[in-house]
Amino acid sequence: MKQPTRDSSLRVIVGRHAIFEAFRVRPREIEKLWVLPGYERTQDFQQIKQLGRPKIEVKNEAELKKLAQSHQGMAAFASSSPQANWRHMESAKQCTVLALDHVEDPHNLGSILRTAWLTEVAAVLVPSERQVGLTPTVHKVAAGGVEHVPVEQTHLGNKLKELKDMGFWVFGLDANPKKNLYQLDVPEKVVWVLGAEGAGLRTSTTKLCDEVISIPQTSSGESYNVSVVAGITLVHTFTKRKL
Amino acid sequence: MKQPTRDSSLRVIVGRHAIFEAFRVRPREIEKLWVLPGYERTQDFQQIKQLGRPKIEVKNEAELKKLAQSHQGMAAFASSSPQANWRHMESAKQCTVLALDHVEDPHNLGSILRTAWLTEVAAVLVPSERQVGLTPTVHKVAAGGVEHVPVEQTHLGNKLKELKDMGFWVFGLDANPKKNLYQLDVPEKVVWVLGAEGAGLRTSTTKLCDEVISIPQTSSGESYNVSVVAGITLVHTFTKRKL
Repeated sequence: MKQPTRDSSLRVIVGRHAIFEAFRVRPREIEKLWVLPGYERTQDFQQIKQLGRPKIEVKNEAELKKLAQSHQGMAAFASSSPQANWRHMESAKQCTVLALDHVEDPHNLGSILRTAWLTEVAAVLVPSERQVGLTPTVHKVAAGGVEHVPVEQTHLGNKLKELKDMGFWVFGLDANPKKNLYQLDVPEKVVWVLGAEGAGLRTSTTKLCDEVISIPQTSSGESYNVSVVAGITLVHTFTKRKL
Repeated sequence: MKQPTRDSSLRVIVGRHAIFEAFRVRPREIEKLWVLPGYERTQDFQQIKQLGRPKIEVKNEAELKKLAQSHQGMAAFASSSPQANWRHMESAKQCTVLALDHVEDPHNLGSILRTAWLTEVAAVLVPSERQVGLTPTVHKVAAGGVEHVPVEQTHLGNKLKELKDMGFWVFGLDANPKKNLYQLDVPEKVVWVLGAEGAGLRTSTTKLCDEVISIPQTSSGESYNVSVVAGITLVHTFTKRKL
């Protein structure tokens, strides 16, 4: 479903888990690996040698810290990313797409991509502005998810209209609607639209949804963390289909 | 259900949302408020003046950064925390407790406490070692949750036995068990036990569980982020009871 293509710029991957998964998925497209001095004596090095043959560059603590505060001793640079296969998604009988309406926190995006991986999401759509990109922290928190889930920068409004023409139902998630996730029959082809931390869905995005629903919670003006909303929604969709 | 008592040390709260919630819940127990210069001209200041009368101390950027990298211009110091009411929990007909077996990431603990608040969790149990405490980042991510959910440092093994004697069922969550959350009748009184990031549940903890179950996911050696597991489990419990 995913066709890797060359990126013009390299993705910077930190976190042991994330780096190993990148080597497993695309060993030939890791252009180089930055490591702390003494790395060739570690178990990680032996394991990576069995997965690929990247160019090794020894760097000091300060250089690695520039990429990420908690870097676990190495950083990989990848020249490809998973790409969405829209033709396949158009003809698929069942398909789940996630659209994020300005998620700005890298921990949230990382956690969302991890969940999207484990629940077989076909693509994650993000706007090109006021949206965190695939930063080192996102890679680390996703712990391998970025290697599996296509993330596509797009004009959300146009893309949602396109997806409707392809037979998708578009549902927004927000804190207030009376109808909740569990009162909905999950359609075979669905786009879940999640709002930003704090602000929630924009009015213009809400208008593009077939319906906006909520996750049950105790009464208060508050709402769940966006990565928790994604988790609940995606696992619910996955479970309804598989079990 | 929660009886605030004096702490010997002060909790450091950062994040606008978290600070406002602390003023709403315990205005008399905010001992002081650190703010950047010029704070008295902000809207936040007007709002806080209506909620409480803390001692205001003007601090510079560097001093606030020592508490938290992204501090949003202020930090509050609270002298009390919500406390678990075990007597009430013993006699309650329905009750949800969460036990964390060494969760080390403050973003995860913060997100878990936010969800625990919105799903009416009576107490969160944590071990005293290798477990992140109520740091400024935890407060910020929980966005008010720390003011509502009692977090109790305890010997997990002894406490779980005690809870069983009080009529609680104890279920562990892990990546591998065949039986999943949705195949279980949620008991009226339940303790959900969640493992550490990466390592999962310890064997000694697993032995104390009546059963260990999983969250459905695609096949892979991976597992969901612990804050996502908490979200799915707690919202499922809340929804089964309320809807």
